[in-house]
Amino acid sequence: MTATQLFLSLGALIVGTALGSALPDPEAPEAQEANVRALLQRQQEAWNGHDLEGFMAGYWKSDDLTFFSGANVTRGWQATLDRYRQHYQSPGTEMGKLEFRNLRIEMLGTDAAFARGEYHLAMASGQTQHGIFTLILRRMPEGWRIVHDHTSPAE
Amino acid sequence: MTATQLFLSLGALIVGTALGSALPDPEAPEAQEANVRALLQRQQEAWNGHDLEGFMAGYWKSDDLTFFSGANVTRGWQATLDRYRQHYQSPGTEMGKLEFRNLRIEMLGTDAAFARGEYHLAMASGQTQHGIFTLILRRMPEGWRIVHDHTSPAE
Repeated sequence: MTATQLFLSLGALIVGTALGSALPDPEAPEAQEANVRALLQRQQEAWNGHDLEGFMAGYWKSDDLTFFSGANVTRGWQATLDRYRQHYQSPGTEMGKLEFRNLRIEMLGTDAAFARGEYHLAMASGQTQHGIFTLILRRMPEGWRIVHDHTSPAE
Repeated sequence: MTATQLFLSLGALIVGTALGSALPDPEAPEAQEANVRALLQRQQEAWNGHDLEGFMAGYWKSDDLTFFSGANVTRGWQATLDRYRQHYQSPGTEMGKLEFRNLRIEMLGTDAAFARGEYHLAMASGQTQHGIFTLILRRMPEGWRIVHDHTSPAE
């Protein structure tokens, strides 16, 4: 370790302590995108197992979560779950099989990211629903979470 | 200046130099949101002056800019300008008077932010168009720029 490396390490330690962050240690840059991608992969698997609570584990469990679907605004984790239940678990509805396509994840600093992509829902009826989404994700003490979802269904 | 403050300042200087960032000096935290808000204010004023190029100055001038309108994807600054021209400056269209409402800006680290809000376009005909949007912004050497826009018009 050179003197400069030592200096940088000590500086980072002091800065980290001074900020008093509740986050665990910083992730290696190559781990960040992989962790965000893994979260969305877990969401897809939960959805396809008809586990809506498991799917919702990817969202920030906060009243400040926001969910834009088309021009409709839903505020808060519970209201977002209720909306999903109404659209996909109430009588006459089904969850279908979810697939994310063309997923692009871009880091915004070390503890935030955004994701763009398409969702495709294949229904038992043979019909499909699809659309595009923008997700904002932040790294929380409990892990990466979606803090804002803007989804636009195709007509 | 205490020894710790000196150490932090020197550390920040070395880290900045090591990263070789092309960004100007970090902005004070209280300046960041104000600068993002000022960018959107300039966009609104440019639009209302029927200055579409001025409005487009708020967007990242890159082929990697993405613009989602409903479920339609436009890629690149030039294609986004062309789309605006077609929708708001071609025969039979008008730009109207733009107003942003309920604008919420949230920082994502020191050099990224996202903004949520509503747009309202009052047309000469008396009709209005409105909808909601999510913007991702990054601080570039040339200033804050929108790198991704997801807009959903109300039906």
